[in-house]
Amino acid sequence: MRPSGRKTDEMRAVSFERGFSKHAEGSCLVKFGDTHVLCTASLEERVPPWLRNAGKGWVTAEYGMLPRATGERMRREASAGKQSGRTQEIQRLIGRSLRAVVDLEALGERQISVDCDVIQADGGTRTASITGAWIALHDCLKWMEAQGMVSADKVLKDHIAAISCGIFLNQPVIDLDYVEDSSAETDANFVMTGSGGIVEIQGTAEGEPFSEDEFASLLGLAKNGISSLVEMQRLATAA
Amino acid sequence: MRPSGRKTDEMRAVSFERGFSKHAEGSCLVKFGDTHVLCTASLEERVPPWLRNAGKGWVTAEYGMLPRATGERMRREASAGKQSGRTQEIQRLIGRSLRAVVDLEALGERQISVDCDVIQADGGTRTASITGAWIALHDCLKWMEAQGMVSADKVLKDHIAAISCGIFLNQPVIDLDYVEDSSAETDANFVMTGSGGIVEIQGTAEGEPFSEDEFASLLGLAKNGISSLVEMQRLATAA
Amino acid sequence: MRPSGRKTDEMRAVSFERGFSKHAEGSCLVKFGDTHVLCTASLEERVPPWLRNAGKGWVTAEYGMLPRATGERMRREASAGKQSGRTQEIQRLIGRSLRAVVDLEALGERQISVDCDVIQADGGTRTASITGAWIALHDCLKWMEAQGMVSADKVLKDHIAAISCGIFLNQPVIDLDYVEDSSAETDANFVMTGSGGIVEIQGTAEGEPFSEDEFASLLGLAKNGISSLVEMQRLATAA
Amino acid sequence: MRPSGRKTDEMRAVSFERGFSKHAEGSCLVKFGDTHVLCTASLEERVPPWLRNAGKGWVTAEYGMLPRATGERMRREASAGKQSGRTQEIQRLIGRSLRAVVDLEALGERQISVDCDVIQADGGTRTASITGAWIALHDCLKWMEAQGMVSADKVLKDHIAAISCGIFLNQPVIDLDYVEDSSAETDANFVMTGSGGIVEIQGTAEGEPFSEDEFASLLGLAKNGISSLVEMQRLATAA
Amino acid sequence: MRPSGRKTDEMRAVSFERGFSKHAEGSCLVKFGDTHVLCTASLEERVPPWLRNAGKGWVTAEYGMLPRATGERMRREASAGKQSGRTQEIQRLIGRSLRAVVDLEALGERQISVDCDVIQADGGTRTASITGAWIALHDCLKWMEAQGMVSADKVLKDHIAAISCGIFLNQPVIDLDYVEDSSAETDANFVMTGSGGIVEIQGTAEGEPFSEDEFASLLGLAKNGISSLVEMQRLATAA
Amino acid sequence: MRPSGRKTDEMRAVSFERGFSKHAEGSCLVKFGDTHVLCTASLEERVPPWLRNAGKGWVTAEYGMLPRATGERMRREASAGKQSGRTQEIQRLIGRSLRAVVDLEALGERQISVDCDVIQADGGTRTASITGAWIALHDCLKWMEAQGMVSADKVLKDHIAAISCGIFLNQPVIDLDYVEDSSAETDANFVMTGSGGIVEIQGTAEGEPFSEDEFASLLGLAKNGISSLVEMQRLATAA
Repeated sequence: MRPSGRKTDEMRAVSFERGFSKHAEGSCLVKFGDTHVLCTASLEERVPPWLRNAGKGWVTAEYGMLPRATGERMRREASAGKQSGRTQEIQRLIGRSLRAVVDLEALGERQISVDCDVIQADGGTRTASITGAWIALHDCLKWMEAQGMVSADKVLKDHIAAISCGIFLNQPVIDLDYVEDSSAETDANFVMTGSGGIVEIQGTAEGEPFSEDEFASLLGLAKNGISSLVEMQRLATAA
Repeated sequence: MRPSGRKTDEMRAVSFERGFSKHAEGSCLVKFGDTHVLCTASLEERVPPWLRNAGKGWVTAEYGMLPRATGERMRREASAGKQSGRTQEIQRLIGRSLRAVVDLEALGERQISVDCDVIQADGGTRTASITGAWIALHDCLKWMEAQGMVSADKVLKDHIAAISCGIFLNQPVIDLDYVEDSSAETDANFVMTGSGGIVEIQGTAEGEPFSEDEFASLLGLAKNGISSLVEMQRLATAA
Repeated sequence: MRPSGRKTDEMRAVSFERGFSKHAEGSCLVKFGDTHVLCTASLEERVPPWLRNAGKGWVTAEYGMLPRATGERMRREASAGKQSGRTQEIQRLIGRSLRAVVDLEALGERQISVDCDVIQADGGTRTASITGAWIALHDCLKWMEAQGMVSADKVLKDHIAAISCGIFLNQPVIDLDYVEDSSAETDANFVMTGSGGIVEIQGTAEGEPFSEDEFASLLGLAKNGISSLVEMQRLATAA
Repeated sequence: MRPSGRKTDEMRAVSFERGFSKHAEGSCLVKFGDTHVLCTASLEERVPPWLRNAGKGWVTAEYGMLPRATGERMRREASAGKQSGRTQEIQRLIGRSLRAVVDLEALGERQISVDCDVIQADGGTRTASITGAWIALHDCLKWMEAQGMVSADKVLKDHIAAISCGIFLNQPVIDLDYVEDSSAETDANFVMTGSGGIVEIQGTAEGEPFSEDEFASLLGLAKNGISSLVEMQRLATAA
Repeated sequence: MRPSGRKTDEMRAVSFERGFSKHAEGSCLVKFGDTHVLCTASLEERVPPWLRNAGKGWVTAEYGMLPRATGERMRREASAGKQSGRTQEIQRLIGRSLRAVVDLEALGERQISVDCDVIQADGGTRTASITGAWIALHDCLKWMEAQGMVSADKVLKDHIAAISCGIFLNQPVIDLDYVEDSSAETDANFVMTGSGGIVEIQGTAEGEPFSEDEFASLLGLAKNGISSLVEMQRLATAA
Repeated sequence: MRPSGRKTDEMRAVSFERGFSKHAEGSCLVKFGDTHVLCTASLEERVPPWLRNAGKGWVTAEYGMLPRATGERMRREASAGKQSGRTQEIQRLIGRSLRAVVDLEALGERQISVDCDVIQADGGTRTASITGAWIALHDCLKWMEAQGMVSADKVLKDHIAAISCGIFLNQPVIDLDYVEDSSAETDANFVMTGSGGIVEIQGTAEGEPFSEDEFASLLGLAKNGISSLVEMQRLATAA
């Protein structure tokens, strides 16, 4: 039995609040249960130095957590003077995931910076970030399309969404919340496209090593979950 | 005429959403129009090194802005590796303002850290932060009272609230939004208690120096505005 | 009775030693009693990146304290690896104050960097810095005028000077020294021009909040004090 | 055809040079072809602050690259003033992998720090690091056993080794060198124990997303490769 | 002919202004011609962590330059966020030199921090710093003696002083000023005790390598110069 | 008697392994007994900003130590976030020493960066670094000559090598190992050219000051030692 009463293949309630931010070209407050992440996509008319005059653009991501997004207050990274290894790992993952579905040539010599800031954390912040970031990126590209800058569909080739799965009390479950995540034996994050291609797999044994079969169950759960998330993205951006 | 159509002594719509954060002992999403700040108050059972064994506690504050809270994306301070001078100035101001109405002996050997994170900015972020931080601090103390730790009313001696005023197009106005702030000749921030005492005054001539009379008008506007803000704090925390 | 025996409206002995530094285009060792600050103005034939090709120049300031300028040795900021919030707050104030009396177009595309380094501290280092910095800036502009670069009087539109006032033992007093500053109930810094315009007001209640009347007394003291400081600047730069 | 002429399931020549370092309790120069990593294990009679008095120890890892380990000289991280996100990601992975086979209670209140420094790089530095780090850790524990501190076999529960696999020219291949890594469509790192349990999986689509079947082929290659690496570790530590 | 008109064995005018700083236990403004350094010695009732309970004290030094001490303004190290290699090299030299004549056991478990801040630079700042620092240290110990803490003569075993020598226009000269230093072929700094023992020698060929004979001439000049400096220290501290 | 059984004028076994690194234009693993340093010379087609368009090149050096190169593990500088004063001092010395025998005009507008990384330390790392760096630099220039970029002999005007000497148990000895270095009364490093010119002398009294005669003995030992090292460099680069 999961602490939340959810079934093993049941994700938390997911919602997207588009246009949450007045200023950003695209933005979305994504909620996976009590995990709330504000994703904004900012268009910048410049590219990183190593891409200058290369005839293509760039999509990058940064990740942060408000100090009291968590059960105990964490030190503010701006005050500590550096981003933790965990933060850097996550923001590199978000950036790679988004770029997997973007045609950088079609974007042109511009950069879109996606910021994922965790307002409240209850496990799965990186997967919620990726899933919500796609909406923000989509809306930014639609904004650019409205300005005649790009064709949004040419730049954004597919959906991208992510979910965590894990072995909790010897059972494969989807979308771990903080309580589950803290005691899961295995924790895996999956990033997949709308057409079912795999973009990233990160599986970690927290306690005992896991077997090939266990991993296959997690992958199976993830495929279904991500398929639902992609459908929700479709509905959310239909209007 | 103000760009927003407001009268010279008319503040923006102000609202407080208490308990915005699931984890913090006290929290409040404060809005002054399009300026939105999430304030959380976190109890920590420790004091700064220089206060150890001094028989009293401490209240401190940190301030941050999400990178795309503003019209153009700003560099993330955690990634830049340091807090700007502006950030430090503001968080020092918030801390001083809150401590002005706190009895540190009555608090006991504990620290309350108040985080003010600007989700969306449209001028007046520091004054909104102070005004909302009071609510978060109040609710944190009530939480502590419920645990039998303190008597909230003994620790929190009075209300504290803040407002900006300025000379815009030669006229004294209250609660400047970003458009006004950018072209105001003079900009002043006032922090006052519920009983009308002045805690902080910061007045700056952005263009021409200002006169004693002009300053008196700003102070007059501020007194009325802060009096209203305190009344709103009272209503918000009545329940 | 003030610890120093001064009357409530009596400033400490003020002196300016121009040309203290052999290398700087303008320099001044300013003393307010035992507070000694070396101010140098350095001409640099460049402007900050955001001002390039804007047809105007910039005046900026940096502030520092020698580690043993104070009663107890403080950590050297260069060794700590960053400037404190207090240092940044002060140097921003000095820069703003100087720019309030400078015509940046008349300066041309150049930067003047004013360094205020506290050799010995006894309260009021920021107000002494501003008052002495004006002399250094003035002499730098005169040096530039001698080279045919600018007309000093067109660039420097007015005098600028500053003084602290405070409520000490329930009485408004001017130019607090360290002993007074440490126990003052209220502490306010005023920056004003030669023609009596107000450029900056920073008032802080250290203990109890202060009233409008108390603040008016402080402002009254400051006006007289700054008027005297401006006269001393005139005499000092007459030769 | 692979650039190196290797078969798709053929790893590079692997060697372990134990006791490479005179000072370290355990050390090993591991070579995977032209990728050379010096791994040292250092015993420290202290634990991280958050583990004090918890009755168990800790194993941690740090990773670095000599500036000219690569084809073009990279900036020295010590001189840049921080470790890159990539470095932090890798050293976190190495530490997690080692801890998966260590009984921290049996280790006692001590820390073993494993340093993996890349002397020469040709792809696969993180997998070579993990594989060599196991030898260094093993030898450190044997040294401790000789001092009567621990029973090495109780602390070190199993082998751990790692290998990269990828899709190169549409074919799954094992142990990518730099040339292959630079143009592989998919790149995956696997960390497994001697008994075949999976500890970490990191798969990334560099170009097109990959399918479940492709991933299964990579996992198959990895299982065989790691099984060989474990056998080589056994032989190397038999004497 | 030297630019200053000095003879090859003629030092610049040297002066010591004791008690320059109101707060420090010992202080001295030392001038070697236009090179002016403020040296303060601060007593701290603590020792570095690695000396705790070792029954002895420590003497350390820090060095800094005001940004406009030099012909062109240099970046402030506190603002740059770190001390340059040159600064660190010099402050390590000053500390080592002072410790060479201090009996750390006789000092007891205390630390004396000597700060050498260059107010104005014209070559030879490190040698002036060492020579002046001895005075500050001496006066600090006398102050401590007056408090009954130590016997100053037991702690301070000898004088220490320093001078630079160099080959300028093929001739060995003493006490190079900035103009000479910039074009000297060889530059050497010597630190010696009052009894003629050598504590530090640092010789560097700026252009062509130098010969043993040339080095012997420099050492000869230095011995005489330091002997005079020690005599001046004696006179300065006689009263 | 020296702990190693060596005679007072006997250096440790010295060896050079050229071409140790696959990627660098020049490289050498130099061993002075148990002190092992990997030196690489990297050609970069750029110069530091202050040398642009000056018609000449630059040679610079960086120095590092692997964390467990020493008897006790030291903190990794990349993780500490800065290079120690000792590291900076050494790398500045290596750079100056190499430049003393390089014709920067003949090099052309290019930079050669020499990295000296200590794999294992047993005293004398800086002198081994300089001696090995010369080989790496030589081989880099030969590589450039083979590309038709420069004439290696015109750029590299002479050999450069270095050795430490010291007073150990009252006797002058050459090439101190760690045990000797830790208890030597005096420690001196000498850098000399192939033709016997002196480039750097750094002598430090660790305990009692040393005399002119003692220093002369050290210099005498160094001359012979460096003469042998230069001969070994000649032999090593003959092939």
